[in-house]
Amino acid sequence: MGKTFAEKVLGKAAGQDVKAGQVVTVEPHFCMSHDNAAPISKTFKKIGVDKVWNPDHLVIILDHAVPAPTDKHAENHKIIREFVKEQGIKHFYDVNSKGGVCHQIMCQEGFALPGLVMVGSDSHTCTYGAYGAFSTGIGRSEMAATWATGKIWFRVPESMKITVKGSFKKGVSAKDLILKIIGDIKADGADYMSVEFHGPAISQMSLAERMTLCNMGIEMGAKNAVCPPDEKVLEAIKDNAKTDKWEAIWADEDAVYAKELEYDLQDLEPGVAKPHTVDNYAPVSEVAGTPIHQAFLGSCTNARIEDLREAASILKGKEVAVRTIVIPASWKVYRQAMEEGLLDIFLDAGCIINNPGCGPCMGNHEGILAPGEVCISTANRNFKGRMGNKESFIYLASPMTVAASAIKGAIADPREVL
Amino acid sequence: MGKTFAEKVLGKAAGQDVKAGQVVTVEPHFCMSHDNAAPISKTFKKIGVDKVWNPDHLVIILDHAVPAPTDKHAENHKIIREFVKEQGIKHFYDVNSKGGVCHQIMCQEGFALPGLVMVGSDSHTCTYGAYGAFSTGIGRSEMAATWATGKIWFRVPESMKITVKGSFKKGVSAKDLILKIIGDIKADGADYMSVEFHGPAISQMSLAERMTLCNMGIEMGAKNAVCPPDEKVLEAIKDNAKTDKWEAIWADEDAVYAKELEYDLQDLEPGVAKPHTVDNYAPVSEVAGTPIHQAFLGSCTNARIEDLREAASILKGKEVAVRTIVIPASWKVYRQAMEEGLLDIFLDAGCIINNPGCGPCMGNHEGILAPGEVCISTANRNFKGRMGNKESFIYLASPMTVAASAIKGAIADPREVL
Repeated sequence: MGKTFAEKVLGKAAGQDVKAGQVVTVEPHFCMSHDNAAPISKTFKKIGVDKVWNPDHLVIILDHAVPAPTDKHAENHKIIREFVKEQGIKHFYDVNSKGGVCHQIMCQEGFALPGLVMVGSDSHTCTYGAYGAFSTGIGRSEMAATWATGKIWFRVPESMKITVKGSFKKGVSAKDLILKIIGDIKADGADYMSVEFHGPAISQMSLAERMTLCNMGIEMGAKNAVCPPDEKVLEAIKDNAKTDKWEAIWADEDAVYAKELEYDLQDLEPGVAKPHTVDNYAPVSEVAGTPIHQAFLGSCTNARIEDLREAASILKGKEVAVRTIVIPASWKVYRQAMEEGLLDIFLDAGCIINNPGCGPCMGNHEGILAPGEVCISTANRNFKGRMGNKESFIYLASPMTVAASAIKGAIADPREVL
Repeated sequence: MGKTFAEKVLGKAAGQDVKAGQVVTVEPHFCMSHDNAAPISKTFKKIGVDKVWNPDHLVIILDHAVPAPTDKHAENHKIIREFVKEQGIKHFYDVNSKGGVCHQIMCQEGFALPGLVMVGSDSHTCTYGAYGAFSTGIGRSEMAATWATGKIWFRVPESMKITVKGSFKKGVSAKDLILKIIGDIKADGADYMSVEFHGPAISQMSLAERMTLCNMGIEMGAKNAVCPPDEKVLEAIKDNAKTDKWEAIWADEDAVYAKELEYDLQDLEPGVAKPHTVDNYAPVSEVAGTPIHQAFLGSCTNARIEDLREAASILKGKEVAVRTIVIPASWKVYRQAMEEGLLDIFLDAGCIINNPGCGPCMGNHEGILAPGEVCISTANRNFKGRMGNKESFIYLASPMTVAASAIKGAIADPREVL
């Protein structure tokens, strides 16, 4: 009987033959933390060991509140810098022009690699599945313990196979697909499952598109989400892999799945997640005309160069009707957008551009909403209060839909602008 | 007996012959407010009139906390947008790519004009003296009353004449001059005076340099600060003056001054204001080597294209040793810096770039300090807690000194890098 991706990767990491349901203990290859490395370091110190098991396995990336919007954040950053120095952690991304959103940095800088087991103290750590990694978010206490021991246990998840065929129609993108899937199976539809994306449409997708899909795996409850480690992945990592311990691992043809779904991109149209849950799906046509006050093009879900290009294709020569905040996923993306003239397009259209980082996504700064205001956002969560105000409303959508809506000042179908 | 600038401008505005000490009532030509337009609008509504005296005389520019870092700020912005709409205020700069720091916008967009009387609900409104305006900061209640009545009274100030000759030596700039002057005469040295800058060195200075001088007039207690409305000013305003009511007015040769000072730029070296007062002057040589944690190149004092060019001349090909936050004074400046390749120089050096606005200057966001941290900043105030943390330390300096210090990770003399 064939094995799923999760069974093969966790089996390899555990050094034994495993199947779904079994509990294994493994050494994660990279442990990613962001600004929450500060509280984690405090917990770590309570454990009673002086040094982390292996500083080269830790990656710390400041992104949630950079540059510090309050003295509390500044103090956290200071604690982290001291911890990094004390522990000799070389993979540290401080507030400078080498950084960006943690998940973007992990993929862009060669940490996300096929067949690695990776953990992060952030829900959206599942993003690295786009590069064929088994990656998952863990809690802060668990991260502290992992720093101390180098070990973490997992129950090998059951797997869900999502097969996608067809091609995106004009104005439709990976974000529309993942919002539709989550709308269909709901926030608990893949609880503790390893979600595998299969099929010819996935092969056709860019790594940026796959990152958008995997990023939102957690929004349907998945333990991890993953795409095949194909030629595109191997090409992307060939010059910058941070370790040679990776291996292109994929599910066997005859693997056994707890659930199987199929999507045809031909049937897909632009969609949104309505307030206040990610699985509150609607096609854009159903909500078109809903007035908005702010548009946000950013976050670990949709702020890569491909996303900015798509938004720019809509915004070029147009003017936004509401305040529109553009935050590239990293300084590398920012500079590429600058070189390609995308920043000019955004600024000509009236948008503002902020420093790469999480921006207003989880309500820390750089675009908090007022009571009663509505934002359309390319991010991954629209929970009540997510962007800092419990009396505001967030619609999640693709970069193209966000751009089209910014122009109209109301939710709009990008196909009408393209 | 000749008249000072203040006597002539306020006399003209009051329609009578006036001299220092006299109280006059005038109609200010432009009334500038920033994010504090929200509390001002609340006070205005308590006065009991429905409409501002003339909406075309009001200018509102969001800059202090953009994009909103908290829901309180977001709510303030919302109140302002509603007030702007209700009152029909056309000179409104929202969170978009036409904005920037209020004082920069006032000068850049043709509001600051020779011979106008201008008020602003911000201390650094004195900046517009660089364009030959009589401009001064007023309190919030006074602004609300001015919105209602169109009238404000002033005691015509006595005047101080500061004559400057010579040329800046390499690595020395207008910021070094004004820090030295404030250090010499102290924070109350020009209390309620109209400070006039005279002499051949002022004529040689760019408007950017004059703005730096006038901007810090308030830091020596001045009611206003002003430079001659010469050819450079007339050239700058010829295509974008927002009104034709201006008139190039300057002090008579035989005007009577309460105090006269003379400076020779030949004697000037790079300087700083040490914590925690602006008049705590020291030459850089005295504090060189003091470790810093952050460098800030921004604010209404020193973030114009000329300032960015000076900083870039130091940073080019170098790498910063501490986090360095660059915030151009406006989106217009930002775009020019992008075109000229300055943003590339900053990013190559490791700096980050934030959206134009006040940034961390008064501790709202975008670079708050942690306890015990030291920042070197191009801004105008270093009071305890100014940048959001009472246990931090701020040194004020020129763009060149800030850039040189960022490279060294300690206060450094720019002449050693140039």
